[in-house]
Amino acid sequence: MIIRDLAVTPIAFRDAPLLNAAGLHEPLALRTIVQLVVDGGVVGIGEGRGGTAVAARLEAVRDAVVGKNIFDLAGIERAVVERLGGGQDTSIVFSAIDVACHDAQGKVLGIPVVELLGGRARDAVPYSAYLFYKLAGHLGVEPDAWGEALDPAGIVRQARALIDRYGFESIKLKAGVFPPEQEVAAVRALAEAFPGYPLRIDPNGAWTVDTARRVAHELCDVLEYFEDPVLTIDGMAEVRARTGLPLATNMCVVAFEDIAEAVRKDAVQIILGDHHYWGGLRHTRELGAICSTFGIGLSMHSNSHLGVSLAAMTHVAAATPSLTFACDTHYPWNRDDDVIAPGAIEIVDGAVAVPTSPGLGVELDHDALERQHRVYLESALRERDDAGYMRRHDPGFVARLPRW
Amino acid sequence: MIIRDLAVTPIAFRDAPLLNAAGLHEPLALRTIVQLVVDGGVVGIGEGRGGTAVAARLEAVRDAVVGKNIFDLAGIERAVVERLGGGQDTSIVFSAIDVACHDAQGKVLGIPVVELLGGRARDAVPYSAYLFYKLAGHLGVEPDAWGEALDPAGIVRQARALIDRYGFESIKLKAGVFPPEQEVAAVRALAEAFPGYPLRIDPNGAWTVDTARRVAHELCDVLEYFEDPVLTIDGMAEVRARTGLPLATNMCVVAFEDIAEAVRKDAVQIILGDHHYWGGLRHTRELGAICSTFGIGLSMHSNSHLGVSLAAMTHVAAATPSLTFACDTHYPWNRDDDVIAPGAIEIVDGAVAVPTSPGLGVELDHDALERQHRVYLESALRERDDAGYMRRHDPGFVARLPRW
Ligand SMILES: [Mg+2]
Ligand SMILES: [Mg+2]
Repeated sequence: MIIRDLAVTPIAFRDAPLLNAAGLHEPLALRTIVQLVVDGGVVGIGEGRGGTAVAARLEAVRDAVVGKNIFDLAGIERAVVERLGGGQDTSIVFSAIDVACHDAQGKVLGIPVVELLGGRARDAVPYSAYLFYKLAGHLGVEPDAWGEALDPAGIVRQARALIDRYGFESIKLKAGVFPPEQEVAAVRALAEAFPGYPLRIDPNGAWTVDTARRVAHELCDVLEYFEDPVLTIDGMAEVRARTGLPLATNMCVVAFEDIAEAVRKDAVQIILGDHHYWGGLRHTRELGAICSTFGIGLSMHSNSHLGVSLAAMTHVAAATPSLTFACDTHYPWNRDDDVIAPGAIEIVDGAVAVPTSPGLGVELDHDALERQHRVYLESALRERDDAGYMRRHDPGFVARLPRW
Repeated sequence: MIIRDLAVTPIAFRDAPLLNAAGLHEPLALRTIVQLVVDGGVVGIGEGRGGTAVAARLEAVRDAVVGKNIFDLAGIERAVVERLGGGQDTSIVFSAIDVACHDAQGKVLGIPVVELLGGRARDAVPYSAYLFYKLAGHLGVEPDAWGEALDPAGIVRQARALIDRYGFESIKLKAGVFPPEQEVAAVRALAEAFPGYPLRIDPNGAWTVDTARRVAHELCDVLEYFEDPVLTIDGMAEVRARTGLPLATNMCVVAFEDIAEAVRKDAVQIILGDHHYWGGLRHTRELGAICSTFGIGLSMHSNSHLGVSLAAMTHVAAATPSLTFACDTHYPWNRDDDVIAPGAIEIVDGAVAVPTSPGLGVELDHDALERQHRVYLESALRERDDAGYMRRHDPGFVARLPRW
């Protein structure tokens, strides 16, 4: 069960013109697919962040990983940290390898990854409808099928489309795009259109503490939680103390080193975990143990991603008893270009069934992988740049936080 | 990989007349060996606390465990909790099964348990010399080979014997037996006889805060940590605030529910984990993640035990990076009656090499198991009763805490 090779494939796939506090999603999103070739012909697959820097770091650790046993996750992690020096960039690289090791372990053993993580706490993992303010189409091209969403009516229309198609039972609005009163109006419109649905709003730290307090006051009766209204642990602690609303974050608590301060200051009531930067599946389970020990809720963060990541997210969420909130996912926005066979994972009744076949339970479609790798190569895109793309739409745009 | 049977074997084995705050160790100590019979003839073994109540609880969960997959630890844990209702008694039962599942998993997969837990952070696990005040022999019988240890000279002699034989590089004295000044004198004698050795003293909560402060003042220059000087989280917090010594516990933080309060009050700087009541190997790894996240040290607690437990302790300690202190073990006191083949595990240079063969890396000696089971059946002993046995030595003894 020794790793003989690590193949790194940067890919690009179509994305919609989604708005956020940092700018505008470009026509292509980036990911990296890793394939770990193991003795006996087993290949473990993983998906991680995209772009040339991540791919280069993965290439840089290949010879430290080759020769290691797929079960020696601690040794592989030490080797990666030794090579790259720790921190979140390293965690992102290790995580893709960790997922591939888990997939290979499961395939070797004939059991699904969820069982390697201690067994399932649930048989299906709920995801939320992830709404975005959105242009009608990418700059200079025709409107897309999703349509424009720049006001409350557009947001409700988008929610309706996602819920009709996937059966989502909770809703998150990516905010921090328009002045807060417009975004408050959108959430109130959602509350009216989808009574009883848990609602979340996430301006990615675009607001001051005073603005966040004002928004909290206006939305406290409909919000399940309030995600990153402001930047920093101290800012969150202040909003919490003054509003009493449960606050969630994927911005101020993003590593184990951040947790103790957040607990001490009661800054965060829900952590949005993400195995892509919390050090892989095992460490995300540990995050779950920490959260339940300290009475912190656990939900799950998402970046634009494809099906290998969705499968990994589903396994680790299924194995984490304390992960009781519906998880975020961008998958509906990107699934048409997925690189898995026989096609994209289905979201039914707002949830993904935990795969029961060995490993992650998904396989690569090598033609599709080659196709999306060519898209990457033929594009000029090497790193995500929401702000740069936004300036082509709005030349005066500055991604300033907080903004309101 | 389905569990077809669960065999529960209560055993008893010789123990020395060791003194502690609760009384005196009886001539026999009790444990329970479990054997999980899995499809294909694999048998996973585990060792847990002894006595009839534990054995009865294990029998009571048999039909909830039979039929489950050895990888479905979460499902097995839920079934055990559902049957027994949670709490530490349940955790003790689940832990023995959890260890046997891990052993079976490793045997099925051909990998050692440490690799199921994420891989080794170290290749050998250090243990400490565990010293006890001790009578010359059991009541009414000849002195044993260990000899009497009722004063500083006897304690130093015992330490010398353990260190000569096993190479231990740190020393723990079980205290709470004699007035504190006598125990302080014993630690000072150890410091003189073994310069540079990390020393620990553990009176099991036998002291008041004022007594603990006095002892801390006298021993602060030689103690690695001060274990359970007083009872309760509040008591520990007060000793910590007034002495600044690192405090360790296996008495006031014994479950995940205790951790948040201990952190909030800075009551405990080292937790002595023990997979036997922290819910098995996986949850002990999670305890390690919590400790490293909150800057709490992790060491390991021991009760009288045999080699299956020592192997399990060694695997989980090896897989837990934050477990940086030498672990406690009673093994030198009990190993002569071990039930593993081909004989007791060796402690060399104060450490146990992490087994490299599949599963726990130890096998049952079925003749020895039958022998110690007969010892159990033929003894009158059904539960541990240090205080009752102590009263045969000292009729006025009352196990009162705190005592000084
Ligand atoms: Mg967010
Ligand atoms: Mg103790």
